Amino acid sequence: MRIDLAFATGERDPAEFAGKTVVVIDVLRASSTILTALANGCPEVIPVAEPKEAFALAEKYGRDQVLLGGEREARKIRGFDLGNSPDEYGKEVVAGKKLIFTTTNGAKAFLEAAGAAEILVGAFLNISRVCSYLKKEEREIFLFCAGRKGRLALEDLFCAGMIIDNLIFAAKDESVVELTDPARAGMLAYRQIAGMGPVVVALTQTDHGRYLASLGMASDLRYCGQVDLLPVLARLEAGGIILAAEED
Amino acid sequence: MRIDLAFATGERDPAEFAGKTVVVIDVLRASSTILTALANGCPEVIPVAEPKEAFALAEKYGRDQVLLGGEREARKIRGFDLGNSPDEYGKEVVAGKKLIFTTTNGAKAFLEAAGAAEILVGAFLNISRVCSYLKKEEREIFLFCAGRKGRLALEDLFCAGMIIDNLIFAAKDESVVELTDPARAGMLAYRQIAGMGPVVVALTQTDHGRYLASLGMASDLRYCGQVDLLPVLARLEAGGIILAAEED
Repeated sequence: MRIDLAFATGERDPAEFAGKTVVVIDVLRASSTILTALANGCPEVIPVAEPKEAFALAEKYGRDQVLLGGEREARKIRGFDLGNSPDEYGKEVVAGKKLIFTTTNGAKAFLEAAGAAEILVGAFLNISRVCSYLKKEEREIFLFCAGRKGRLALEDLFCAGMIIDNLIFAAKDESVVELTDPARAGMLAYRQIAGMGPVVVALTQTDHGRYLASLGMASDLRYCGQVDLLPVLARLEAGGIILAAEED
Repeated sequence: MRIDLAFATGERDPAEFAGKTVVVIDVLRASSTILTALANGCPEVIPVAEPKEAFALAEKYGRDQVLLGGEREARKIRGFDLGNSPDEYGKEVVAGKKLIFTTTNGAKAFLEAAGAAEILVGAFLNISRVCSYLKKEEREIFLFCAGRKGRLALEDLFCAGMIIDNLIFAAKDESVVELTDPARAGMLAYRQIAGMGPVVVALTQTDHGRYLASLGMASDLRYCGQVDLLPVLARLEAGGIILAAEED
């Protein structure tokens, strides 16, 4: 098993993802919000790069048939139905409605990874489910930390590091898991914080965590730091993210 | 005190370095080799991007007045006097001779950082000397890991993380040292390996360390992993790297 890792969008040539299983990790908050929407009955999340594409696609489906969600500078986009807080994606809002979704980092990562063999959604919320799927994986695994404006967001690295740590534990023999230097850095950083308390504490120390807290969104940190709250597997297929079958 | 960190060349807009004190870290091997040359009596190391610039500059100074050193794919460049192994830079070879130097990553990092307020050379070999200088620093500190072909090289991150760990220890209060997410990742990765044995052991586990060992250059790993062997401070000034005064 070989595992590579990107620290942020824009870092890798998209051709590098070909043939690999990519896990897009945007803990705060795109991955967490997408998983929440799907778990609450949204049938499909369609990531797009820009708000104008979202509006165009909404017209195509019929504006009242879909929800528009996402953020710019962490806030809801004008004319959109929902922002990027998982708290807004309750059953009563999203059940049965397609979601067209654009965020600064997470949606961009899904689009960059589009040429991969398989693309999964990773967050603390579904981490064990992702790991139990990945441990049977024969393709090279690529953990794609979405980051923030082309830079590492530490919470994504912690999540990627926790996935690596779990996969090594599952392999029982560290030497059969081949890590690139960025992947090893992620594992080491995670192991260093792992003994220090719940994940959510680490989230409050990251640049993005502090920023969201300063905007009054600390409750999103507490939510997104919950390990295994939503044991679902979600996959990007033909431009839309959907829940995988239970047996996957 | 604020500390930022880049994982590799090409990652940051050079304008970002303006007004900052940049430490270029290329443990394997450019930083280590430059420090060795200077400590052994080379009066100045001039980093250039490409071999053809090195040859042109050598003609200007007089070909027999200078040494040409560096590597491509870890090996000596055709027509050069020396490769990139610190082992080649003994007193008998380098004393009194200017060195024109080009390497794939390290030399490139010095050139990218050219617009900084101050540029220092960092490696395990001189790490305490760098830290005692930096702890008096009032400018923002930027640890520039040179990496390898635009990707993180883990040995550089360990060295940067050790610098951060030392600076936090010197500050006595972790909260007065502000770390960006990449800087915090470096500190955590270093702290995780710090208790596991000598630095040189960690070097043998990195991609570049393994590559050099496969080329028969394991002795370079052992050399470059020696903490504080050369307690010198070296600074890029007007295009050349020279030793700083003792009192700096």
